[in-house]
Amino acid sequence: MIEKIAHLGIAVKDLDAAKRFYEDVLGLKCTGEEEVPSQKVRTAFFPVGEVNIELLESTDPEGPIAKSIEKRGEGIHHVAYQVSDIEAALAEMKAKGVRLIDEEPRPGAHGAKIAFIHPKASLGVLVELCEYPREP
Amino acid sequence: MIEKIAHLGIAVKDLDAAKRFYEDVLGLKCTGEEEVPSQKVRTAFFPVGEVNIELLESTDPEGPIAKSIEKRGEGIHHVAYQVSDIEAALAEMKAKGVRLIDEEPRPGAHGAKIAFIHPKASLGVLVELCEYPREP
Repeated sequence: MIEKIAHLGIAVKDLDAAKRFYEDVLGLKCTGEEEVPSQKVRTAFFPVGEVNIELLESTDPEGPIAKSIEKRGEGIHHVAYQVSDIEAALAEMKAKGVRLIDEEPRPGAHGAKIAFIHPKASLGVLVELCEYPREP
Repeated sequence: MIEKIAHLGIAVKDLDAAKRFYEDVLGLKCTGEEEVPSQKVRTAFFPVGEVNIELLESTDPEGPIAKSIEKRGEGIHHVAYQVSDIEAALAEMKAKGVRLIDEEPRPGAHGAKIAFIHPKASLGVLVELCEYPREP
């Protein structure tokens, strides 16, 4: 079902300061920046092998990333696993009684369908499932 | 310098309960378990694509994982990036004035040389660098 880790979402207070660490200290290359109004974040992407590091800065003090930093400080916010069939994955989890944030997939960035498992079910790690459109 | 994410270290209170989530809910396969007395942990590994998920349960209430759970709860404890030359990577970081936990590499699991960057330097994410022995 799970193919790979698609991305790690990292909550940061200051996207520009965080970019300097990932670029200048770790030597990674930023391949894009995007504002996602629905999530109230500004993000920057850094591919590392087959995984994307996604830095997330809140654009709103009431947004989910601002709230997360308030509670737990900066750091890894979620892990996104790429699945081949997100509807099938969610149906299987529901059948097993797993607590979900999203019972149905919703649209994510880059044309993906995404859904979150409740962190109570996944031992403190916020887990995202995502299915990307296949090449035609 | 960085080749890929080698593993994600996840702090858990109960390794057996965590294994059930990663096996039964996410459908991943546990490929090994190991006790690492120097780190006061019991670990279980789950490969996902090119990354290993490493679940970490403390074997000692004074160990680093127990302390981390006490402060921040369960969740992702560190991200390990695989580098080709850890001495060169550390020398470069020292030259840039990056705060390090380990100024020199120390031995890790599987014959690796490892070193940690200080989380104050890396925006709340504990970053491990690791170099694995090359095939002869």
